[in-house]
Amino acid sequence: MEKLKERILKDGRVAGDGILKVDTFLNHQIDVGLMEEIGEEFYNRFKDAGITKVLTIEASGIAIAAFVARALKVPLLFAKKSTSKNMDGEILTSPVRSYTKGLTYLVSVAGKFLGPEDRILLIDDFLANGSALLGLADIVGKSGATVAGAGIVIEKSFQPGRKRAEEAGLDVCSLVRISAIKDGRVTFLEEDA
Amino acid sequence: MEKLKERILKDGRVAGDGILKVDTFLNHQIDVGLMEEIGEEFYNRFKDAGITKVLTIEASGIAIAAFVARALKVPLLFAKKSTSKNMDGEILTSPVRSYTKGLTYLVSVAGKFLGPEDRILLIDDFLANGSALLGLADIVGKSGATVAGAGIVIEKSFQPGRKRAEEAGLDVCSLVRISAIKDGRVTFLEEDA
Repeated sequence: MEKLKERILKDGRVAGDGILKVDTFLNHQIDVGLMEEIGEEFYNRFKDAGITKVLTIEASGIAIAAFVARALKVPLLFAKKSTSKNMDGEILTSPVRSYTKGLTYLVSVAGKFLGPEDRILLIDDFLANGSALLGLADIVGKSGATVAGAGIVIEKSFQPGRKRAEEAGLDVCSLVRISAIKDGRVTFLEEDA
Repeated sequence: MEKLKERILKDGRVAGDGILKVDTFLNHQIDVGLMEEIGEEFYNRFKDAGITKVLTIEASGIAIAAFVARALKVPLLFAKKSTSKNMDGEILTSPVRSYTKGLTYLVSVAGKFLGPEDRILLIDDFLANGSALLGLADIVGKSGATVAGAGIVIEKSFQPGRKRAEEAGLDVCSLVRISAIKDGRVTFLEEDA
């Protein structure tokens, strides 16, 4: 997605080798017009995949996934990073490691929202180590539903997330793939996948 | 908002006196079509208030606030419930008590996203004790920006949140006001505010 690459070059900030901050438009302050366009991109990619629900993880996936779900006209479901008193019935969980925060969450989804007839599109802002994406796929698997695809806004292709996701059988669509973040510079992979 | 009342009666679940679960359409699984309509409602209410930014709190406010921000054509900003390594520069914080989870968060926003010229619309899913709303207003105040209004989807009018918010000078617009949740039944206040 050319526009997203341009935005990363314009407003992203390299905060050290491997570290890209996009808090001005993606994961703290959010450009909702851009999110709507991202929603359309994923719609075009997955509109024929029979998606019945979009699943993301709180918090930075939610705004993106909301516009994807809107474009696909299906409900949005977000996994919680803690099990709250508000959840009842069967709760599906999976451990997800956050390398940024240096801790492991037990991510949870109420089982009643996923069933064997569901075809789930996973959405997240970043794919780096793949822990969040594989955790979501694990939860979907436990429910008997099918993961129909995974839509990622920014893939750090120099980290093992995509390989791990593909080995788990996921169809990964990343709008932007970054091959290196080094010496203050972001380099993109030649093709978008 | 008549449609929202009907949805609460149809899909909300009273889980004890004072406790209403809306996890099928508002704060776990999300009906994004309804969120878009909610966005339009708040747009109509606040379109002439000179809003420059929408501020909410993770996680359940984000999907709602995304559609409000989209309708108003302004950026969305969400306060985080923890200070992450991803945040840098000046960080504005305020303590917010979660009665549901029984703990107090130090909610935070990067100071660079709020300035004296900003007119902020606060958005949240519920108004009960008002702790989250007042915490957001406190953060906006610390930045020198102005709170131009507060949009709430469901107000529990039998709890002190609205009174506290009004005493703090906030212009509160709740789409639905609930006067009682008792004996398995939800009762609405006569007028919407």
